Amino acid sequence: MIHREEMTLKTKGETQVVDLTEGVRALVRRSGVREGTVHLFVPGSTAGLTTVELEPGCVADLRAAFERVAPRNAHYDHNERWGDGNGFSHVRAALLGPSLTVPVADGAPLLGTWQQVVLVDFDNRGRDRKVVATVMGE
Amino acid sequence: MIHREEMTLKTKGETQVVDLTEGVRALVRRSGVREGTVHLFVPGSTAGLTTVELEPGCVADLRAAFERVAPRNAHYDHNERWGDGNGFSHVRAALLGPSLTVPVADGAPLLGTWQQVVLVDFDNRGRDRKVVATVMGE
Amino acid sequence: MIHREEMTLKTKGETQVVDLTEGVRALVRRSGVREGTVHLFVPGSTAGLTTVELEPGCVADLRAAFERVAPRNAHYDHNERWGDGNGFSHVRAALLGPSLTVPVADGAPLLGTWQQVVLVDFDNRGRDRKVVATVMGE
Repeated sequence: MIHREEMTLKTKGETQVVDLTEGVRALVRRSGVREGTVHLFVPGSTAGLTTVELEPGCVADLRAAFERVAPRNAHYDHNERWGDGNGFSHVRAALLGPSLTVPVADGAPLLGTWQQVVLVDFDNRGRDRKVVATVMGE
Repeated sequence: MIHREEMTLKTKGETQVVDLTEGVRALVRRSGVREGTVHLFVPGSTAGLTTVELEPGCVADLRAAFERVAPRNAHYDHNERWGDGNGFSHVRAALLGPSLTVPVADGAPLLGTWQQVVLVDFDNRGRDRKVVATVMGE
Repeated sequence: MIHREEMTLKTKGETQVVDLTEGVRALVRRSGVREGTVHLFVPGSTAGLTTVELEPGCVADLRAAFERVAPRNAHYDHNERWGDGNGFSHVRAALLGPSLTVPVADGAPLLGTWQQVVLVDFDNRGRDRKVVATVMGE
């Protein structure tokens, strides 16, 4: 059984961390899949997916780490070529990755108690994003 | 065909790198799946999954890199709010990610010769961990 | 429906970024799968997979970020033990991860317009690489 669904969301960018957990829970329910996996993927090259304990402290700390790895105001060849100023966004997104798979058990994503599924939008402006969810199983 | 199984393990934390390879090999065998994939997922927000050549040098080097990206003793907002001192653990886990999928061929995970499947426990204390494995295929 | 195929490629290493997009598109077509996912995995512990906007600026910027996280000429315990000088390659590969899954819709990988599937070869010499693709769906 395969169920594909697109989640659409408006983001603000600047390493915004957006909670997808309830949306994922709802679409897994709609899929009718009881046992299997839900795969999430963000098309585009300036956002990524992961899980995190979604409280303001962790969000600030995660942002600080990305600032260490790919500082917003470092030199980026991408900026020189394209002038859109989001070189840091591309690097951060490629490091985090666009893909995440979560097990489904008893019709629900099997997450830890304080573990949320999040999209991190690294772009330097707001975007209309979509996340493609594919639930597979029985 | 879908086979879900939970691996349980006691970890020590502090960016401990734990070999899951034999456990994964065994559960793929038990699943009866010959061709497909095995998906691994760690519930919780202070551990992650990846592959590495598991020799003490690489383990030390990987720890040093995490110390560069999210130093244990940097300032973490999470620590100020919650007082549990594991802000660095949350950041490292979110960067590495909780999810890994490995192909299954001829009833075994298809890994490189010196490539092990590992859980990295970033917490600042020992934990009872589980890793959820989902084998899908035929 | 499950279709496994190996892509073989010659790489140069040194954090070379190799475009796999057309190869993935072709093998998804050959698989006959219209709806589902394509999972990619690189056996070995000195290469990884992700997506990126594949233009020379982003490639240079991504390399610079890996140099920040795991500098080529830092001290690596792996190098002292094994003398092969690719300690930085192991660390970079473990951080990026060997696994990527992309949704398949209407018989094609569902990627963003400027989003390419890439292998990053971190080794310090050229290699014969294979990437294992598993297309699952209907």
